[in-house]
Amino acid sequence: MNRDGVPVPGSPPPAAGAPAPEGGPDATVTPNAQLPELDQAALRGLAEVGRGWSRSMPARELWERALPVDYSLKFASPRRSGAGRFVRIHSGAARGGDGDYDGDELEATARAGEGDSRSGRVTYALRRVLIGPALRSTAIAEERLGRLMALGVLSPDALSSVAYGPQAMMAILVLAGAGELKLSLPIGAALAVLMLSVGLGYRQVIRAYPHGGGSYIVASDSLGRLWGLLAGAGLITDYILTVAISVASGVAAITSAIPSVSSATVPIGLVVIVLLVAGNLRGAREAGAAFAAPTYLFVIAIAVIVIAGLIKAASHGFHSVPPAPHRATESLGVLLVLRAFASGATAMTGIEVISNAVPVFQPPEEPHARQTLGVMIGLLIAMFVGVVLVAHFDGASPVGNQTVLSEIAHRSVGGGVAYGFVQLTTTLVLLVAANSAFNGFPRLLYFIARDGFAPRVFLRMGDRLAFTTGILVLAVPAAVIYAAFGGQTSPLIPLFAIGVFLAFTLAQSAMVAYWWRHRERGWRPALATNLVGAGLSGLVVVIAAVTKFTQGAWIVVLLVPLLVLGFRRVHAHYERAREALTPRPDGSGPTPRVRIAPPQLAPGVSQRLAEAQDEPNQVHSFAVVPVAVLDLAALHALAYAVSLGQPVLAVHISPTDEEAKRFRQAWTAWGDHLPLELVVSPYRATVAPLANYIAALHNQRPDVTLTLVVPEIVVARGWQRILHNRISMRLRAALIAYDGIVITIVPFHLPT
Amino acid sequence: MNRDGVPVPGSPPPAAGAPAPEGGPDATVTPNAQLPELDQAALRGLAEVGRGWSRSMPARELWERALPVDYSLKFASPRRSGAGRFVRIHSGAARGGDGDYDGDELEATARAGEGDSRSGRVTYALRRVLIGPALRSTAIAEERLGRLMALGVLSPDALSSVAYGPQAMMAILVLAGAGELKLSLPIGAALAVLMLSVGLGYRQVIRAYPHGGGSYIVASDSLGRLWGLLAGAGLITDYILTVAISVASGVAAITSAIPSVSSATVPIGLVVIVLLVAGNLRGAREAGAAFAAPTYLFVIAIAVIVIAGLIKAASHGFHSVPPAPHRATESLGVLLVLRAFASGATAMTGIEVISNAVPVFQPPEEPHARQTLGVMIGLLIAMFVGVVLVAHFDGASPVGNQTVLSEIAHRSVGGGVAYGFVQLTTTLVLLVAANSAFNGFPRLLYFIARDGFAPRVFLRMGDRLAFTTGILVLAVPAAVIYAAFGGQTSPLIPLFAIGVFLAFTLAQSAMVAYWWRHRERGWRPALATNLVGAGLSGLVVVIAAVTKFTQGAWIVVLLVPLLVLGFRRVHAHYERAREALTPRPDGSGPTPRVRIAPPQLAPGVSQRLAEAQDEPNQVHSFAVVPVAVLDLAALHALAYAVSLGQPVLAVHISPTDEEAKRFRQAWTAWGDHLPLELVVSPYRATVAPLANYIAALHNQRPDVTLTLVVPEIVVARGWQRILHNRISMRLRAALIAYDGIVITIVPFHLPT
Repeated sequence: MNRDGVPVPGSPPPAAGAPAPEGGPDATVTPNAQLPELDQAALRGLAEVGRGWSRSMPARELWERALPVDYSLKFASPRRSGAGRFVRIHSGAARGGDGDYDGDELEATARAGEGDSRSGRVTYALRRVLIGPALRSTAIAEERLGRLMALGVLSPDALSSVAYGPQAMMAILVLAGAGELKLSLPIGAALAVLMLSVGLGYRQVIRAYPHGGGSYIVASDSLGRLWGLLAGAGLITDYILTVAISVASGVAAITSAIPSVSSATVPIGLVVIVLLVAGNLRGAREAGAAFAAPTYLFVIAIAVIVIAGLIKAASHGFHSVPPAPHRATESLGVLLVLRAFASGATAMTGIEVISNAVPVFQPPEEPHARQTLGVMIGLLIAMFVGVVLVAHFDGASPVGNQTVLSEIAHRSVGGGVAYGFVQLTTTLVLLVAANSAFNGFPRLLYFIARDGFAPRVFLRMGDRLAFTTGILVLAVPAAVIYAAFGGQTSPLIPLFAIGVFLAFTLAQSAMVAYWWRHRERGWRPALATNLVGAGLSGLVVVIAAVTKFTQGAWIVVLLVPLLVLGFRRVHAHYERAREALTPRPDGSGPTPRVRIAPPQLAPGVSQRLAEAQDEPNQVHSFAVVPVAVLDLAALHALAYAVSLGQPVLAVHISPTDEEAKRFRQAWTAWGDHLPLELVVSPYRATVAPLANYIAALHNQRPDVTLTLVVPEIVVARGWQRILHNRISMRLRAALIAYDGIVITIVPFHLPT
Repeated sequence: MNRDGVPVPGSPPPAAGAPAPEGGPDATVTPNAQLPELDQAALRGLAEVGRGWSRSMPARELWERALPVDYSLKFASPRRSGAGRFVRIHSGAARGGDGDYDGDELEATARAGEGDSRSGRVTYALRRVLIGPALRSTAIAEERLGRLMALGVLSPDALSSVAYGPQAMMAILVLAGAGELKLSLPIGAALAVLMLSVGLGYRQVIRAYPHGGGSYIVASDSLGRLWGLLAGAGLITDYILTVAISVASGVAAITSAIPSVSSATVPIGLVVIVLLVAGNLRGAREAGAAFAAPTYLFVIAIAVIVIAGLIKAASHGFHSVPPAPHRATESLGVLLVLRAFASGATAMTGIEVISNAVPVFQPPEEPHARQTLGVMIGLLIAMFVGVVLVAHFDGASPVGNQTVLSEIAHRSVGGGVAYGFVQLTTTLVLLVAANSAFNGFPRLLYFIARDGFAPRVFLRMGDRLAFTTGILVLAVPAAVIYAAFGGQTSPLIPLFAIGVFLAFTLAQSAMVAYWWRHRERGWRPALATNLVGAGLSGLVVVIAAVTKFTQGAWIVVLLVPLLVLGFRRVHAHYERAREALTPRPDGSGPTPRVRIAPPQLAPGVSQRLAEAQDEPNQVHSFAVVPVAVLDLAALHALAYAVSLGQPVLAVHISPTDEEAKRFRQAWTAWGDHLPLELVVSPYRATVAPLANYIAALHNQRPDVTLTLVVPEIVVARGWQRILHNRISMRLRAALIAYDGIVITIVPFHLPT
């Protein structure tokens, strides 16, 4: 790809920050996002700062030749110095253009991610055993799925809801007495209409956002940021509850079959959550087939139950068996019917997953995704309606220790192997559904963080390409909620529908706005579809919030706006930080800025640098400055290092070739005043390769003092610490073992 | 005091490191011990290193005048710079001699111990509210006690043992049936002889070690270090068990009186331990009278019981009431009698306290201490024998929920106010006894640490002069043991006697060696006394270890040698560290040494320093090096700071004037190459005054970059970290708030 974003044949997939090929929001995931890109104004600002330095700085060549070590590691002994952990590469990214960049850089091997101490090596080996070998960033692009596989992988969240949705609906109706369970038929029909409407709506989303969207991106794009954040907050509560409810429901399928283990409900569920975390930290890539199978088995199981149940019902002339009597505790009324409707609507969670994941389909992505979504909605409606019907004819009751699904399975297929198969597949599909939240949640937070509304740590991909932080931030609250509610499904249901339907409503409304604005061919029926979807979804939100407020919905009603507030505070901080950190041309910023004065150089430094070149043994120290982003904090540290009057080397660790090139551009814009080594870390580790590189320099000349000058951003408030990556402490821990490496921390203070 | 250790009229009390006035081991406690003193060889080594520097270093005056700030804080604005936290003093210590030292230094006020951040101020205010105002180091000397007060303060440990000793003895005898309880009379008599013998032996200790000793110091001095450490390890287990057993026994006195609270035994005891910790962190100084009163009240209470009991027994013609029948579970034999003897011997714990504490008596200390010890032994024997006799005549039984003391109190004085008084004073005296362990344990560890066998952190006195670390290291295992044994006294008794009597045996043996060696006037009867004491105590150790091995004594038998091993490993590390850190004249050390090369100075530094003096605004940075001890790590950091080619200032924080003077001597020996500021911190804080001083420098010229160059000792093994004070992290936390302060850590590696 060249500078203008036009794809070049044979170039790697587009990087984040680069505009998506056909406009619209970018829904791809890349480790480049970790390091923010400097805009044109910032590059001009850098150039201006650099011109100030030019007046006093000795020439770059002088600095470079004065360095007492071979920083390219071309000639360093690979074994003795540890330089063997790095290989010299000729960057592919550089071949695309940019004649002034020779594309020659270092690449960190997997071994460079290993700590140098014994404990470091042990930790590394343990990680490899537990979660597998590290994966290169380029492995991301390989995950494409065919339609059949995609349906299996993306639909368990939606289809598994059939395991608890009908039961949740019936559990409300039975409060008015077992006789009122017959109302499940009309309410079920209404829900089927809702499913159809929302499903068709999401097919329009795929059409409008063929590069993947999801409610957060779609609502942000078409309605505005605040609505996007609202949808995002709704989805966050939804993902957490999906994990808690799917696990609870999956464990309930086990305890329905084996009542004796029901006392261990909570520990079993917590073990399941831990296993899900471990599996996801490994990265879900290998698990495609393993995750698709339960979905299909579950579909088969439900089909068997429904067909067997319907045949039995037909043999009785479709006369329904009356359910076991249950005393009414509430009277039937509109409110109760609405509550039953809202509870049943939980069967629709997960309907949006396919529209978020368009880019994972094999090309052509858009039609494949639309077809797959169509099939999924068809299956969902058929399974949901089928279960409701059979439950009605069988006179199943949502009261007692057994789930409704277990009850109708018993009656349809008896108690033998077939019954066990149904329960097992139900458990498996629910766990896979819980697992899908572990895919969706970290991605959602990645996008929110990329827009600057969530801590940047959500952008980091672990050495297995998994979003470690997102996975843990999902698992901990889900486990707490699961345990706090005793591992029971029913008390969690009232919390569930609001977040999902809030996101549905906002996504569909966004589509209405989109069609109205774009008026593409066929926009009228599309707009109508989305309008109906938005209206119905919004109705569910209101019903759920009002009728279940006191049963727990208030938690979500409170939490969602708090999350939005939190997002906005994070964003405000990042904006101020950017404002404070980015070099800008004079007069372009809104406020007077911290000026990074050119370094104060003692007289005679040029001469000494020139002398050092001839007599390398006369150099007694040099400075190394790790630079992540060429912002004012880094320039501050570079100026300090230069002011020491000794040779200086800058090092940048890059997750990808593209990012390395981007950094090189900024460095060139600044004026390329100092020697720079770019180290590409394809496994995305930062601290370990940096420490290993610095050790490889130090080992070449252990007699020379190496001063590591680390820029450190200092925040004014304690909570803001989680918003910035503080590597100085970790570098210190990694490098303290070397005699002769001095660590210097140059603070840069952000405003409040 | 002048250099030769001869007291000068009006001089402050002798400092640690200074030899004790009349020879013998030094048993005084001073914050100076925190910073090790350099010996003559080290001073010669420093001089040699300094001569190497002289060849390249610009003159001191040049360095001093080049500094862009007023480091004496004489002219700095007290308010704006924060210099008001310091006052300039003319040191009292300096007046004693030493014409080359003008004694002009800074003193940190109490406010300099306060952090500069809001959270720092809040923490400081909270500390003041909870534990009271900070105390100056000079407040140590004020704690002198008259004989009456000393008896009250120092004897509760010994006297309170009467509350559980007789019962522990009877609890063994009753195992052979209630009829064998009559054996308590002959065993009690044997114990009385033992008390007399050991007590007289400790009177000899006071005579030989009038400056205070304690078993650790006495055994180290006369028998050798290993025996001293063995005694120390015995005492450590003893102190921990004293806290656990005294609290358990004190709570038992409460639950005997109020049986309904007995289910809360463990929580009550833990609350008591927490209160003891809190009280001791405040410093026990104010509590003298409050702690003496319970002792006297307890003596009165026991006297009342015993006299009333004996009168009643006399009225029956000294016919004893048969105790409640109890079935024998073991047969009577020599082993059982010996076990009963060993259990009863727990009544002797604490007999050594007065001999440890001779210096707290008002002068003349020695005779006062001997008299007080005599009175205490008399009281102990009288009370012990009295309780055993009355228990015998009353037919009290050690079986059931009531303590024996509670039982005979009931029979002697009835159940009214008098009984309540007995139980209350018993509880109080036991808690005071537990408290005495909080005095003894940290002092013991102070002495062990001063000799280099325990982590140096035990030498630190908090801002209330309390040994914070020692207090916590006592409380935590005591609380764990208390809770693990369910707050019961009897299962703890088998662990108890071994440690105490091990220390007794070693102290008495040491006295035998002492008299044999010194042969002062009257040495023969003294030696005989100690020989008998050593023999009897040793017998108790063997009896206790053998007869109670399986009942828990094995824990102590295992723990004591492990502690000694731990002491030796700590000492070996400190020795290697000293070897590695101390400058030595060439050829004097056993191994080739790390040489601290003179700093590498760029040409023209002298000229620039001279120019800086005329144009202070041309100086853009300077370095500050905090130095605790002028060892090779500090010289390394100083050399690094000098090599930066900018003005350098060294700062030393001293807990006392004496230590400041000592440091000045080392600095002068080295050659006084750089400007130095001494800051005396009379409240013994280090980091906060240092941070505040550095802030006061920075605030004078916020435009000048201040590089703080911190020497940091890096150990090879993780566990060794607790042996060294790592202030770099805390300085970083305190100073990171200042823009323009750069923190540089210069590591110095110790060998394995």
